[in-house]
Amino acid sequence: MKNMKLSNLGEKKIIKKLMDLIDIGDDAAYIPFDDKFLVASTDMMYCKTHILKEMSYRQIGKKIVAINFSDIASMGAEPFGFLLSCGSPDMEFENFNEIISGVSDQCKKYNSKFLGGDTNETDELTLAGTALGLTEKPVLRSGAKVGDIVAVTGFLGTSALGVEILLKKLINFNEIEGEILKETLEPEPRVPEGKFLKNYANSMTDVSDSLTVSLYDIADMSNAGIELNLNKIPISNNVIKTSGKLNLNPINYALYGGGDYELLFTVSKENWEKIKIKNSRSGFKYKFTRLGEVVKGRGVFAGGKKIRNSGYEHFRVL
Amino acid sequence: MKNMKLSNLGEKKIIKKLMDLIDIGDDAAYIPFDDKFLVASTDMMYCKTHILKEMSYRQIGKKIVAINFSDIASMGAEPFGFLLSCGSPDMEFENFNEIISGVSDQCKKYNSKFLGGDTNETDELTLAGTALGLTEKPVLRSGAKVGDIVAVTGFLGTSALGVEILLKKLINFNEIEGEILKETLEPEPRVPEGKFLKNYANSMTDVSDSLTVSLYDIADMSNAGIELNLNKIPISNNVIKTSGKLNLNPINYALYGGGDYELLFTVSKENWEKIKIKNSRSGFKYKFTRLGEVVKGRGVFAGGKKIRNSGYEHFRVL
Repeated sequence: MKNMKLSNLGEKKIIKKLMDLIDIGDDAAYIPFDDKFLVASTDMMYCKTHILKEMSYRQIGKKIVAINFSDIASMGAEPFGFLLSCGSPDMEFENFNEIISGVSDQCKKYNSKFLGGDTNETDELTLAGTALGLTEKPVLRSGAKVGDIVAVTGFLGTSALGVEILLKKLINFNEIEGEILKETLEPEPRVPEGKFLKNYANSMTDVSDSLTVSLYDIADMSNAGIELNLNKIPISNNVIKTSGKLNLNPINYALYGGGDYELLFTVSKENWEKIKIKNSRSGFKYKFTRLGEVVKGRGVFAGGKKIRNSGYEHFRVL
Repeated sequence: MKNMKLSNLGEKKIIKKLMDLIDIGDDAAYIPFDDKFLVASTDMMYCKTHILKEMSYRQIGKKIVAINFSDIASMGAEPFGFLLSCGSPDMEFENFNEIISGVSDQCKKYNSKFLGGDTNETDELTLAGTALGLTEKPVLRSGAKVGDIVAVTGFLGTSALGVEILLKKLINFNEIEGEILKETLEPEPRVPEGKFLKNYANSMTDVSDSLTVSLYDIADMSNAGIELNLNKIPISNNVIKTSGKLNLNPINYALYGGGDYELLFTVSKENWEKIKIKNSRSGFKYKFTRLGEVVKGRGVFAGGKKIRNSGYEHFRVL
C-alpha cells in the first residue's frame, strides 16, 4: 500500500480496505436496542461535487435530509431524528436560513426531529448529515435468495438525465419537464415504501450511486447472481420523450446514472404477488416494477451477458 | 435581517436565531428512549481552522472522536457509537488509513462502535463526526441552582497556550512540555468523569469554547448568575512555568481560550462534599476544583466585576 493514493483506489475499494476497522452495517449501521434496531447513517454534500447551481438554498437543505433518510428507508427503518454539521463560507443570513428551513421542513415531513448541529466557517459549502431511525427488522443487502424477484420503486434515470441537461445546458431551464427537475433538484426518500417493504423484502438498498452499483452490491453481498431484464427497467414517459428529443439513450441513465433515490429490493415469488396487489391498491405514489431475478452464480447479467458495474463514485479516476 | 451576513452575527447569534427551527437539546440532543435517553451530537473539524499542522493523521482521527464524545460526556451520558463523514483531497492511502485508525482506536478506548460513514472528495480535509450515547439522566446547562458550587475537572488554559505556542512558534517543538502538547494535539473527553458526575451535578457542560463562554451558558440558561473566584482557577504547573518563561498571563488562556475538554458543572453543597471525597479516593485522573458559586442575578462576576464573555466562535469578526 506504500505510495498508493486514494484516487488509485476509488471510494468502493477504500471502504473495502477499511472494513476491518469499521463496524459498517449496510446502507446504514444498525444496533440492537431492546426489541428494535437503532439505524444510523451519515452522508456529506460538498458544494463542488453535489450541489447543482440551479438548486435553491431551500432545496439544498431538503436534499441533505433526503439522501440521509434514503439510507434509513433502504434498511426498512423509519427516520426519527436528524443532525447537521454545516460548513459554510460567509453568506447572507437569509440564504443560510433557507438551508436550515429546508432541513427543518424535510424533517417535519417525515415525522422526524431536527436535533440540531454545528456551524463552521469553511471555504466551500459542506453539509454533513446524520439520520437516526428505528425498525423491528433491518433489511440488509445480503439477504437475497436464489429465486427472488428483483424489483424497484418508481422510475430510474430521471435524475441522471436531469443533471446532464443542467450541466451541459442542453435545454433552457424553463423548458425542462417538471418531473425531471423535481427528481433532480428535490429528490424524496422512499420512506413509506421502505417501511412497507420491510415486511416482505429479503434484501434492499437504494440506487443512489446507480442501478448497476446497487445490483452488484446485492448480488455480491448475497453470494448470488442477478439476471436483469433490460426491457423492464422503468423509465418515465417524460424521460423517454426528453431523451428522445436530445438523441440520448435513456437506458444508460437508468443503468449507470446516480442521484435517483428509489429502493431496489428482492422478494420471494409469494411475497411479490402479495405486494403487487397492495402496491396497486394502497395508493403508493411509486409503482413497484419487477426487473429481474436472483440466480445462482455471481455478477449481474442481461440476456446472459455481464453488465458493467458503473456509477457515481468519489476518488475514482475514470 | 435583509443583507445581514453570517459574519455580522457570529455563531452564537446564528444559532439563537435558528433555535425556533431546531429542537436543539443542549451540548447534545437528548431523546427519551425506553427508560433511558438517547443523546446525539455532531461536530465538524475543518483543515484550516481546526487542524494544527503539527497534528499527526492519527491525532486528527482521535480528535474528531474526542470533541464529539466530549459533548456526550458533558450530558452525563456514555458514548456507544460514532459515525464519520470524511471530505478529503486526494492523499496517500496510508495517511487516510491513519485518520481512520485514530477514529477506530478512540472509539474502542471508550467502548464505542465505529458505525461507519461516508467518504467524499473535497478541496480541504473536512471531518464531520456524530456521536451517540445513552444516559438515565441527561445533565443540562439549565439546571444550576442558586447556592450551587461551581466546579471543573482537570486544568484550564493548557490547550489554548499550546495553540499559541505552536501557531507563533514561541518554543521549538521538541522543547514544549509533554503535557501541553498532549492536551493541545490529543485531547481526551472526560467520559468517566461525566458518567460519575451525572448522579450529583445539577448542571454541566464542557469548556471547549472557553471557560467564560461555558460559565455564561450555564448562568444564562439557568436564569442565575455566577460569582467566580479567579484565584481558584486550576492551572497546571507546566502551564504556569511555560507561560512565565514566555511572559504570558496563564489566566487569560484559562478564562478565554478554547480547546480544553474539561467539564464545568454545578452541584449542591451537600453533593460537593460527597464528590470531593470520592474524587480524591477513586483514582480519577482529573481532580475537581471548586471555582465559584451560583448566585442570584444574571451574568458572571469576579470580585463583583463582570467578566467578559469571550472564546472561540465561528463567523465572529473580532
